Amino acid sequence: MSVNTGILFVGACGHLATTAMAGALALSKKICPPLGMVTELFPELKDQFFQMENVVFGGWDIRPCPDVFAVIKGTGIDKPEDLIFLTKEVEKIQALSFSGIVVNAGDAVSSISEKGHVHHEDSITHAITKIKLDIEKFKMDHDIEKVIVINIASTEPSLGDAVCLSNKDSIEAVIDENRVEKIRPSFIYAYSAITSGCAYINFTPSQGGMTKGLVELAGEHGVPVMGSDGKTGETLVKSALAPLFAMRNLQVMSWEGYNILGNMDGKVLQHAENGSTKIKSKEGLLPHILGYSPHARVSIDYVPSLGDRKTAWDFIHFQGFMNTKMSLQFTWQGCDSALAAPLVLDLARLGILALEKGESGIMSHLASFFKSPWDMDEHSLEKQFSLLTKYLSTY
Amino acid sequence: MSVNTGILFVGACGHLATTAMAGALALSKKICPPLGMVTELFPELKDQFFQMENVVFGGWDIRPCPDVFAVIKGTGIDKPEDLIFLTKEVEKIQALSFSGIVVNAGDAVSSISEKGHVHHEDSITHAITKIKLDIEKFKMDHDIEKVIVINIASTEPSLGDAVCLSNKDSIEAVIDENRVEKIRPSFIYAYSAITSGCAYINFTPSQGGMTKGLVELAGEHGVPVMGSDGKTGETLVKSALAPLFAMRNLQVMSWEGYNILGNMDGKVLQHAENGSTKIKSKEGLLPHILGYSPHARVSIDYVPSLGDRKTAWDFIHFQGFMNTKMSLQFTWQGCDSALAAPLVLDLARLGILALEKGESGIMSHLASFFKSPWDMDEHSLEKQFSLLTKYLSTY
Amino acid sequence: MSVNTGILFVGACGHLATTAMAGALALSKKICPPLGMVTELFPELKDQFFQMENVVFGGWDIRPCPDVFAVIKGTGIDKPEDLIFLTKEVEKIQALSFSGIVVNAGDAVSSISEKGHVHHEDSITHAITKIKLDIEKFKMDHDIEKVIVINIASTEPSLGDAVCLSNKDSIEAVIDENRVEKIRPSFIYAYSAITSGCAYINFTPSQGGMTKGLVELAGEHGVPVMGSDGKTGETLVKSALAPLFAMRNLQVMSWEGYNILGNMDGKVLQHAENGSTKIKSKEGLLPHILGYSPHARVSIDYVPSLGDRKTAWDFIHFQGFMNTKMSLQFTWQGCDSALAAPLVLDLARLGILALEKGESGIMSHLASFFKSPWDMDEHSLEKQFSLLTKYLSTY
Amino acid sequence: MSVNTGILFVGACGHLATTAMAGALALSKKICPPLGMVTELFPELKDQFFQMENVVFGGWDIRPCPDVFAVIKGTGIDKPEDLIFLTKEVEKIQALSFSGIVVNAGDAVSSISEKGHVHHEDSITHAITKIKLDIEKFKMDHDIEKVIVINIASTEPSLGDAVCLSNKDSIEAVIDENRVEKIRPSFIYAYSAITSGCAYINFTPSQGGMTKGLVELAGEHGVPVMGSDGKTGETLVKSALAPLFAMRNLQVMSWEGYNILGNMDGKVLQHAENGSTKIKSKEGLLPHILGYSPHARVSIDYVPSLGDRKTAWDFIHFQGFMNTKMSLQFTWQGCDSALAAPLVLDLARLGILALEKGESGIMSHLASFFKSPWDMDEHSLEKQFSLLTKYLSTY
Repeated sequence: MSVNTGILFVGACGHLATTAMAGALALSKKICPPLGMVTELFPELKDQFFQMENVVFGGWDIRPCPDVFAVIKGTGIDKPEDLIFLTKEVEKIQALSFSGIVVNAGDAVSSISEKGHVHHEDSITHAITKIKLDIEKFKMDHDIEKVIVINIASTEPSLGDAVCLSNKDSIEAVIDENRVEKIRPSFIYAYSAITSGCAYINFTPSQGGMTKGLVELAGEHGVPVMGSDGKTGETLVKSALAPLFAMRNLQVMSWEGYNILGNMDGKVLQHAENGSTKIKSKEGLLPHILGYSPHARVSIDYVPSLGDRKTAWDFIHFQGFMNTKMSLQFTWQGCDSALAAPLVLDLARLGILALEKGESGIMSHLASFFKSPWDMDEHSLEKQFSLLTKYLSTY
Repeated sequence: MSVNTGILFVGACGHLATTAMAGALALSKKICPPLGMVTELFPELKDQFFQMENVVFGGWDIRPCPDVFAVIKGTGIDKPEDLIFLTKEVEKIQALSFSGIVVNAGDAVSSISEKGHVHHEDSITHAITKIKLDIEKFKMDHDIEKVIVINIASTEPSLGDAVCLSNKDSIEAVIDENRVEKIRPSFIYAYSAITSGCAYINFTPSQGGMTKGLVELAGEHGVPVMGSDGKTGETLVKSALAPLFAMRNLQVMSWEGYNILGNMDGKVLQHAENGSTKIKSKEGLLPHILGYSPHARVSIDYVPSLGDRKTAWDFIHFQGFMNTKMSLQFTWQGCDSALAAPLVLDLARLGILALEKGESGIMSHLASFFKSPWDMDEHSLEKQFSLLTKYLSTY
Repeated sequence: MSVNTGILFVGACGHLATTAMAGALALSKKICPPLGMVTELFPELKDQFFQMENVVFGGWDIRPCPDVFAVIKGTGIDKPEDLIFLTKEVEKIQALSFSGIVVNAGDAVSSISEKGHVHHEDSITHAITKIKLDIEKFKMDHDIEKVIVINIASTEPSLGDAVCLSNKDSIEAVIDENRVEKIRPSFIYAYSAITSGCAYINFTPSQGGMTKGLVELAGEHGVPVMGSDGKTGETLVKSALAPLFAMRNLQVMSWEGYNILGNMDGKVLQHAENGSTKIKSKEGLLPHILGYSPHARVSIDYVPSLGDRKTAWDFIHFQGFMNTKMSLQFTWQGCDSALAAPLVLDLARLGILALEKGESGIMSHLASFFKSPWDMDEHSLEKQFSLLTKYLSTY
Repeated sequence: MSVNTGILFVGACGHLATTAMAGALALSKKICPPLGMVTELFPELKDQFFQMENVVFGGWDIRPCPDVFAVIKGTGIDKPEDLIFLTKEVEKIQALSFSGIVVNAGDAVSSISEKGHVHHEDSITHAITKIKLDIEKFKMDHDIEKVIVINIASTEPSLGDAVCLSNKDSIEAVIDENRVEKIRPSFIYAYSAITSGCAYINFTPSQGGMTKGLVELAGEHGVPVMGSDGKTGETLVKSALAPLFAMRNLQVMSWEGYNILGNMDGKVLQHAENGSTKIKSKEGLLPHILGYSPHARVSIDYVPSLGDRKTAWDFIHFQGFMNTKMSLQFTWQGCDSALAAPLVLDLARLGILALEKGESGIMSHLASFFKSPWDMDEHSLEKQFSLLTKYLSTY
């Protein structure tokens, strides 16, 4: 029997995948401590989670490997021999990644794809077949039984109400009739993963990566799924701070969030149709926590010089006793990939655990990892986190 | 039977007392909504809490009334007639306040006292008698049965381990032997309040205002008490943010907090012996929440131009996945009195409620209001708050 | 002979005009020191400048008086009797203001106009006649000889290249042919002022308020003029900071400026066509000072709760030795009107001085007051300021 | 005749020296552009300045080489082969550095010295002889004629009024009588450099590195000198921003500067006697620029996690028209060494140029490089910079 676990990334050559792969390798070689990983807060469950030396990475991308050394240099790994070792190993993994698909991906995503890395299929059915075959090949090549597919690709444009993907039957109809305009690549990957028996995580806000119909399918195929949109930066801070105002009965008049970032994510998000998908995901939180909708705006601008170092300035204008106006402002300077990568590995561990335990459908206990946790109104970070601790206390 | 409730402030003519009095009046006249008040988050308990039109204020101070108009102008009350009305009413109340005591108060506090406002007694016993008589006079003058005494005076110098105040017997010995060097004014007020059957709150970090011996006494006299040090600004934000780092396994390397403020509180805190009492109270939180002690420093500087507008800059340097260094900084610009005043009124409501219900001793359910909640290790704001909601759900 | 000087504001009932009027009055009554006024830095020229007790204010507006008390309460004047006195006096002045014109003003401006405060004329010629008659009436009513007209109204939409206003002849053609779509209200006021022998200042970025043709006319009519767009906040700081990077050979990679404000100015600027006029004015500076164009973006968002308290966050990402990336960020929290009002009074003094000295045409020595000083490439604050000191040293 | 120029650092193995050496090498190999270097703003003088391929580095230190790779990794050099090449070359240079002296250096400096890197002499005279011999050896070993000595060592404790070093005769007396308590190591290096015919720069605030007597000696020995304390970060920003307030007649009420840094400089500065030397140097500027002394405080705290990444938060509280209070705050996040290193190379170029031209004594035209330019009251950055451009325009 295989001792290995497989993680397949949609977006296997991006900044985030590179960091996750390098980090897992660094952890298995004890190059650095497992900071940033939530599952490490539960040492008593060590045996339940896979260890990093037993993970095999793979995935799909529409672009070639990035400058892996530059990515890793941006972390806190300081020894030249470690940097060079990690670079070479990650390059080897990424060289094996499968070509990606761009079926109705939108201009922004298509424009960053590169020749030789895109697989063109003439129908949704063929695209699904190709992805499912990739999954099987990956399992066989590496003798792996349990696989989780995690979508960490660029944000796609909105699908509107996505009503065509809202139940199993209409999903099958969309596929049979090849209604390409009703889907995005994220849907293809999610559908293929679920129907291949993989656990699945939508770490992006892309709508096609998580719909009612996909959840229904997951239940039927006995696989656990969760999404959407990893909570790694500004929204994370928001979900910790907003409850303060609620608990003190301080009226938030305005909460302006201004985000600047310079990686591929930022480049895609500067396209209005992609950016609005993301912004919508970020804006949902305040009304849920506060119980009313303050004047709130989330802006995202692309500032190339920042690279992966995302900076967010939030200005919170609030009113207290005797209508006195006061303010809190914060500047978050995070490294997007270094924040997301450990969560992606955590989700892989928790998804594989659920798969092994035979759980299927939505993993609500993972709400604290997401900006828009599926079908849930609880947005306070502490309350979401208690769902996880409660869940894990049963193992 | 009296329908009135009495609130006696230690520090009745300070910025905070002025704001609390003016605010209570403004609320009773519907001049502004009850923002900032936590008890208003529980409308189902409205009948359990006293209403602002039934409160009589009083107290002690070692200084005369401040420029009341200037204080109130700093709030969000905008109509000239309201400002002038509130000013006159508060001036009337403060004109009736009792003279204060400065027994072993330290240089900083003594230096801000003014002639005609200080009562000198030749022994601890006499000082206690004077305060207890003041309380009785206040009750009789206003036909009041239930009184809460709240210490909102300037921070006093440390008392070291205060071992002499650690049980009832040694307290009595200190009083009998008139060991003035072992006490501070805060002790005199607390002792007098408790032994007069008043509920009592130590809203300051002054050690004399809450000791093991005083808690013992409170149990014996059947009065509820709580402290210490109202959590209104930088520490409030800390208690909301620090759990984020713990829950994400992000290692806080350094948390530097730099506070500047310009009110009387700031003036007293610039004295090293007073400031260190305050800073100690602010520093306790991080190790409890994080489980380790990061490099952390809290500085407080007196910047007169700021007046009551306290500004705090916190810089949090943390390390995540692959040792990547990142940071979060925030600037808190609060109006100290507008933040504290509603909490003081909340504590009065909750203290009087407990007194009416016959509860005595420490009110642990009020932890979320304090920087250093008595005898408690829980510092996460959300977890502390759940103690309050649980307590109130029983009424 | 009249000893009085007249100041006519286009926008006489706005926040800025209210502050300028109240401030001039407060100065003449010695209620506060003349902080913020640049002309007060030259006490040796005291006799050359008019004094505040000799100024008569007037002007036009399309809206009624604001809540004058609320405006003045936002300043640092603290005595209730001063606040009430100033309020009443300013209300008297504003009650006398003339109705304004909205010829081709654009939707944003028109939408904030109020019935009874707008004067509708059926042609450009009639509109000009109405404004010129207003000026004459003002002079006669108050026995005034020297008048300066200052445009402090809301920013108008762009006029494109405004080629039709680029010389005297084409201006006359536009007026004769009543080509309303080629002008804005700002043009009407400027034209009327200049041809009535008034000094004239365009304190806004509105294009119609300063064109080549108007400058030509000013020369012909012997009146001094200057513009455009008062430099009061974020751009002021930029013009002081940007030279630092130039002088240290530090490469500015990105300069992101994010402005939020809540007054009428902000409300109008949220309309794309008005906002772009303003943003264009703010963006010109960096390339001039640095010698190259960094990635730079200026955003302006309307946040009602801020009122006149404008907040700007600028993030400057720069690269130094060995390509090391570093950053400077600043948060500017200014009171828009309190910053602009003294400059408006300064410009009135300097404009009247020039008028008295018989100077005409562009007053280049006033460059330091403007974001887009007419026909000038120098944007360093210190270098611009030296033009003023040099000019004044001749008097 | 030698074409080489020699630069000797006091503090040759510190973070700053490492960066300067690596950077010079990188420039000579065209690995990066000459950002951060002021002399590169004058391309017309290229032939007057030495080129980086003609520089030989050396110097003294009391500690061994640092982790050179870690230092260089912190810059923007991104290719692994460049990083490794630069590391090896700098390690070679630093291996040749001379041992340093710690005569009356104070506890903080002595405590960071390491065995085998300190040279102990029994008298001031012997120490001077040792340093002068080191200089001669360096010249001979590398066949160099022109040498500049630059002090970039840790800040020393104050020498009080340093009256004993205020003229040539008393300097000689101090040396002859071996009055060790009247000098610091910085004095020994400065004296030795000047009397050996080297140009000399005191880039630190250490008092012993620049005194009236040393200036007198420099004149006599025909060598150019300048100091003190390189203006690289917070004070640089201050000298650009403070004139803004002066030029706008805005009253600075408070200017609070809070600096945190984690390098060896920070470690030494946390010692009160060393820190106060630095803080005094930083505080002089505001009164000179503003013409009055606002409430101003400069704090420096040691925060190890920051390493060389210095962070400063400044809060400027100012009052304008009608006493309105407003504020500006900035956060400076600089890499100390990357800011200082190019200036050190600039000063070397300008010092060697002056030496070649036969200039001697104080180089006042270098004022813009220093926090406390010798014998000068001008602190505005732009005005200081114009001294340099004027000087260079003569060549």
